[in-house]
Amino acid sequence: MAEAAAQDLLLAAAFVSDAQYNRNIPFKTSPEAVRLYRLYNHWMMRTATYFFIFLNLSLALFEEPAVYPLPFLATSVLEVLCLLVFLGRLTHFAKVTLHNVFWKDTKNICIMVAILLSLTDLAVYGVLRLYGVRSIRWSRIVRPVFLINFAESRQIRRAFRSIRNTLPEITYVFLLFMFSLLMFSLMALKLFGERNLQTAEGLPYFRNYLEIVFDLYVLVTTANSPDVMMPAFDFSSWYALFFIAFVIINTYIFMSLFLAVVYNNYKKHLKNEIRKLAYMKRRKMVEAFNLLKEEEGEQFVVREACWKQLVKLVAPDTSNSHRELLLRISDDEQKGFVDKKSFVQLADLLNIQVVTLRIRRHPLARWALYGCAPSRLLRGAVRHRAFVWTYDAIILINAIFIALDEESPYISYAEWVFLALYIIEILLKVYTYEPREFFGKTQFWNWFDTLIIFAALTATILNATLKSTMKYNSQQILDIVFILRVLRLIRIVDSIQRFQVIMNTLINIVPTMLTFGGLTLVVYCVFAIIGMELFQGKIQYFPANSNAPHALECGNPALKDSLFARGRYCKNNFNDFASSFIVLMELTVVNQWHVFANGFANVTVQPAKLYFIAFHIVMVIIIVNIFVSFILEAFFVEYSLEKSEVETAIEQKIQELGMGVQEDELQQEQLLDNMESAEHELEGEGGMKPQRKGLVFKIASKRYRTVDALLQRMFEAEIPLEDEGPSFEEILNLSPSSAVPRNLNSESAA
Amino acid sequence: MAEAAAQDLLLAAAFVSDAQYNRNIPFKTSPEAVRLYRLYNHWMMRTATYFFIFLNLSLALFEEPAVYPLPFLATSVLEVLCLLVFLGRLTHFAKVTLHNVFWKDTKNICIMVAILLSLTDLAVYGVLRLYGVRSIRWSRIVRPVFLINFAESRQIRRAFRSIRNTLPEITYVFLLFMFSLLMFSLMALKLFGERNLQTAEGLPYFRNYLEIVFDLYVLVTTANSPDVMMPAFDFSSWYALFFIAFVIINTYIFMSLFLAVVYNNYKKHLKNEIRKLAYMKRRKMVEAFNLLKEEEGEQFVVREACWKQLVKLVAPDTSNSHRELLLRISDDEQKGFVDKKSFVQLADLLNIQVVTLRIRRHPLARWALYGCAPSRLLRGAVRHRAFVWTYDAIILINAIFIALDEESPYISYAEWVFLALYIIEILLKVYTYEPREFFGKTQFWNWFDTLIIFAALTATILNATLKSTMKYNSQQILDIVFILRVLRLIRIVDSIQRFQVIMNTLINIVPTMLTFGGLTLVVYCVFAIIGMELFQGKIQYFPANSNAPHALECGNPALKDSLFARGRYCKNNFNDFASSFIVLMELTVVNQWHVFANGFANVTVQPAKLYFIAFHIVMVIIIVNIFVSFILEAFFVEYSLEKSEVETAIEQKIQELGMGVQEDELQQEQLLDNMESAEHELEGEGGMKPQRKGLVFKIASKRYRTVDALLQRMFEAEIPLEDEGPSFEEILNLSPSSAVPRNLNSESAA
Repeated sequence: MAEAAAQDLLLAAAFVSDAQYNRNIPFKTSPEAVRLYRLYNHWMMRTATYFFIFLNLSLALFEEPAVYPLPFLATSVLEVLCLLVFLGRLTHFAKVTLHNVFWKDTKNICIMVAILLSLTDLAVYGVLRLYGVRSIRWSRIVRPVFLINFAESRQIRRAFRSIRNTLPEITYVFLLFMFSLLMFSLMALKLFGERNLQTAEGLPYFRNYLEIVFDLYVLVTTANSPDVMMPAFDFSSWYALFFIAFVIINTYIFMSLFLAVVYNNYKKHLKNEIRKLAYMKRRKMVEAFNLLKEEEGEQFVVREACWKQLVKLVAPDTSNSHRELLLRISDDEQKGFVDKKSFVQLADLLNIQVVTLRIRRHPLARWALYGCAPSRLLRGAVRHRAFVWTYDAIILINAIFIALDEESPYISYAEWVFLALYIIEILLKVYTYEPREFFGKTQFWNWFDTLIIFAALTATILNATLKSTMKYNSQQILDIVFILRVLRLIRIVDSIQRFQVIMNTLINIVPTMLTFGGLTLVVYCVFAIIGMELFQGKIQYFPANSNAPHALECGNPALKDSLFARGRYCKNNFNDFASSFIVLMELTVVNQWHVFANGFANVTVQPAKLYFIAFHIVMVIIIVNIFVSFILEAFFVEYSLEKSEVETAIEQKIQELGMGVQEDELQQEQLLDNMESAEHELEGEGGMKPQRKGLVFKIASKRYRTVDALLQRMFEAEIPLEDEGPSFEEILNLSPSSAVPRNLNSESAA
Repeated sequence: MAEAAAQDLLLAAAFVSDAQYNRNIPFKTSPEAVRLYRLYNHWMMRTATYFFIFLNLSLALFEEPAVYPLPFLATSVLEVLCLLVFLGRLTHFAKVTLHNVFWKDTKNICIMVAILLSLTDLAVYGVLRLYGVRSIRWSRIVRPVFLINFAESRQIRRAFRSIRNTLPEITYVFLLFMFSLLMFSLMALKLFGERNLQTAEGLPYFRNYLEIVFDLYVLVTTANSPDVMMPAFDFSSWYALFFIAFVIINTYIFMSLFLAVVYNNYKKHLKNEIRKLAYMKRRKMVEAFNLLKEEEGEQFVVREACWKQLVKLVAPDTSNSHRELLLRISDDEQKGFVDKKSFVQLADLLNIQVVTLRIRRHPLARWALYGCAPSRLLRGAVRHRAFVWTYDAIILINAIFIALDEESPYISYAEWVFLALYIIEILLKVYTYEPREFFGKTQFWNWFDTLIIFAALTATILNATLKSTMKYNSQQILDIVFILRVLRLIRIVDSIQRFQVIMNTLINIVPTMLTFGGLTLVVYCVFAIIGMELFQGKIQYFPANSNAPHALECGNPALKDSLFARGRYCKNNFNDFASSFIVLMELTVVNQWHVFANGFANVTVQPAKLYFIAFHIVMVIIIVNIFVSFILEAFFVEYSLEKSEVETAIEQKIQELGMGVQEDELQQEQLLDNMESAEHELEGEGGMKPQRKGLVFKIASKRYRTVDALLQRMFEAEIPLEDEGPSFEEILNLSPSSAVPRNLNSESAA
């Protein structure tokens, strides 16, 4: 019986943990599977998986053509190791999940196929290599599959799903756009084809239909404006009208339409995903409740002891006092059990970052001197707003000094003065505030200031001592450190109410930026590997004073007089993985991409331009637009929150319990002041449990929440607490068009 | 009594007319003021005003520096004439509107000040000119004021209001962005300033702080990527990271934030404006009803005779049968009066474009031959879908032939074949369909086809006859005509369901594009006039084979070796109004704008770059983003309509009355077939009024509605019919933040 109870507890803990982290893995409920599942979700296992995924991807740095060459044997051993780890992880997953679910899931099949392909290719390549035959390592482009398909990369997969869902509509707009492009090209051929015009480079102008299509496609991206127009414009001013009409229709209208389609789909699918997540979470909590429930009067409840064990299992790192706080919230009438309604909120409760403020006296307070009048005055001065303002002014002056010419000796002396001032500031602050509090987990700016000053101090001292011996002047590194210090000015900006929505948006998009980083990484990897196979070694970089033949033409006479060579773009080549990434980055920025396309087409064949067009369509038209959609949506969510703060029932409860000190209401300095006075009040109250004496719980800043979390919370606020939501299968099949299940309007979640 | 009734009728007509066209002028209600107001709104008066506004703006074409020079006397006489017309229009307006309203309205003050300034400047300039002193015609930049401030340009004013409202928030983002830009510039100065690097043009690289700020600002617009990075990148690959971080933060994140802020404000204010319009309309209809109401039993109503007189006054061009239809809808129980609820809908009723289809027999039907079997078969064949498909295929083949080299004689013969085929198509269609119906008002594509073919025929014949005598081959014009014919392929695209949302968006944005055209015109005018004063004559264009000194440097040695001269941009100058517009257009497209900025700064002074930066901020960051917002919103409205068709009660009534044939349900060909059978049904019914026999009313296509109209309709659908809305003053003071007056949620209007 106890055995069974312990197993139920483990299973319930797995459900709660999944609900807390929004994991959606249909695991088996047998005791050993649950234990395996717990291991599967262990942070070390997940970190290891990520490590091997990135190791596998970074192998391209060491394989031919390598940035840092390693022998083929080393890279292939590493690759086999990675593949074995992936296989192990997959096997582990297969043991955890249901058999038929595992084999129906395309991502598992994808991983298996990718492992198989990689091994086959590696073997074939290795054997051919032994016989001295060079072949292509084509399986390298399947490597990003692991990044996409491992269950940990839910966000990236969601982004890919979003792209896949957007594709049909994008295609329709794209076809219309191509129709317009081909029509305009036809007109351009007829209008300009027989005028015998020449471009600024002396090449024939608008003679060949396919070249016109390419040139006009480039004009849509604005990269060759106004050059592409000049010969016709010089011939007759009226021809400008053709290009104006073209740009308005294709660049402004069609490109905006692409954004509209992508944004519309992004929003639609985001809402659907959020809805799924919210229902899933509710469902899992209900399952967990059903496992642990006991009868109590007319209702089913979870008893306090059982609840505590569960929380210990789910979040072993929480302190006793924190757990007591959670219990007080869940069982606010102190009846000794938690009812279903409160139990279901546990996942959210665990997600609220509660900071335990331990109210301590300053270690120096033992000294009699610390309490004397001058010391009090000093501490008062440091706490005063003017102190902050003074230092803001100093930073600003420092920034101006940095911008000035540093040759003047006065200015280099000034640097020492500034450094001293900054050190004094930190010492004063540590003297005034409790040091352990000052360097608390959430005191980002204090850490930032201190680290920067420490780095600056080290750099300055090193600089001064090594100045004579080193050739390279480390003064510049010191300056960079000082410039970073100027970032503290962001704090001033942030304190102004009107900048806060903007700053909040910027802060909240950082975590999701990682998803886009992943997405970009996948696209870049694929294109870089293809690019290296196509263009490797065709273009060489020679330093400015090189005597190599064709050094000015990037080592390739085909580039003579080309814009590529004239722009000195030789270092933008596909000769290794890192260079390829930089070229792709430049192509993402779009400008001058046609120079790259023409350059690489000149050194290979003309259809090579298709590679660049394909990259433009995938990266700029799709992914950059999704990124812009994401920022738009993040801003709108943030903006609508500014007016109507979404506060969960839980946060209100913490507030009501009187233990929460909300950060937003209090400034940094005031908070610490308040704590000292709060200490007395707590002592005065007496009704509090003893272990909470001298402690204040505070909800970690509300500002740092991702858009997803905000949207999910807004959506959950609308599910009535009694509602258990649809079943697992129904949830998974929710489609964006079948909106509004029950009485929920998904529109209102936006 | 009759006199008073007639006056009430006139006043009511004015209210209804204002409601119909969404005019919001608080006119006096005295009989003579109403008569004057009627005159004020006459289409000829409005057209004349627009004519003189554009005449006034286009004076810049004829004044020094002129595209088409006119003597100073002529332009100044024209200008005085324009100003007098504006003064007259304003006086007329003053007589119509209330005295205190007139003087409180800033737009009237603006016009008066603008007239005064223009006259003063003209006089001063004229006198100075007599004494041989050259001065600046600075008052020319106030000319766009007339375009913005005349009551007719409501849409442009709304766009300007939207910009004004967005400015504070844009400013906050802009300040943050500038902070980021200055910080990065500081780092760049320290990182690259002392490396003694050179750009591809051999100029010093990143030495001067202000130049770095400018270069990095240009990089935000991506216009100098990757050139600005290459020297540092050649020095060390790691420096690429600096530029990558810069581009991600400033180009991707900040530029998206600008779009987010602009879009958010655009949406917010659009909703508020639409809400105001909807309430205003309701209010005016209620006022009109109160003027005409008579007691009938327990309620107030408007009697049929009075109602008919009103409609005749408001819409004198509607036919008797159309008026009967409207009455049938308003008084559907045929009680001889219209109640308040129906009366209030009159404005919408008048706005519904009802097409009167007169069912006629084909004129050839009198011939016995027309009805014989081969003729029937032929007509059946023409009506068949395969006929359309065949011709679509022919057009496609024709397009391919056009793209092929026309030197081959077979291809030039083929053109004749195609032309003949097209003429046969039109003749067959006219034979099959009733000609007056075929060339009906709404048969856009039939007109289009016929005109194109007629033009092609004329051009081909002229080409053939004049080939020997003319030097210039008109074949190219003929080709353009043929290419236009290819536009008919859009019809194929349009018939596919999935393309319709996109096409609808494209069609519906056309009217509002005019607003953006106006907005752009205002900004271009101001910048062109300033640009001409600053840069006129500094850069000259010489034809390619000119022997003038410095012909390759655009006549200015300061441009030697500059990118401007090397790109052969000499024709892009501010030497006249038309050229200035083209330069500004190229600056709007953004690419290479720094080459222009540097070029014009080289021939004048470095701060001239500020002109280009200002233009970029105004045009690209603000106006282009508003344009993109507009397209996004248009697409979303269109998309949400695709799923839930908003149909007013009125349209439903037309449907119910059985007289409406909805276009969407029927294909073009089917429609005409149906009419013939419908004719018999109508005769069979007999219960219809005699004058409607042989007539079918049909709601003109629902597709051609602007976003505004759609939004307004969606919003109106939510105002309960009994609700009279707030008073005039309350409506005008509605602010976007005070959303949701009464129980209306403005969110739901999106």
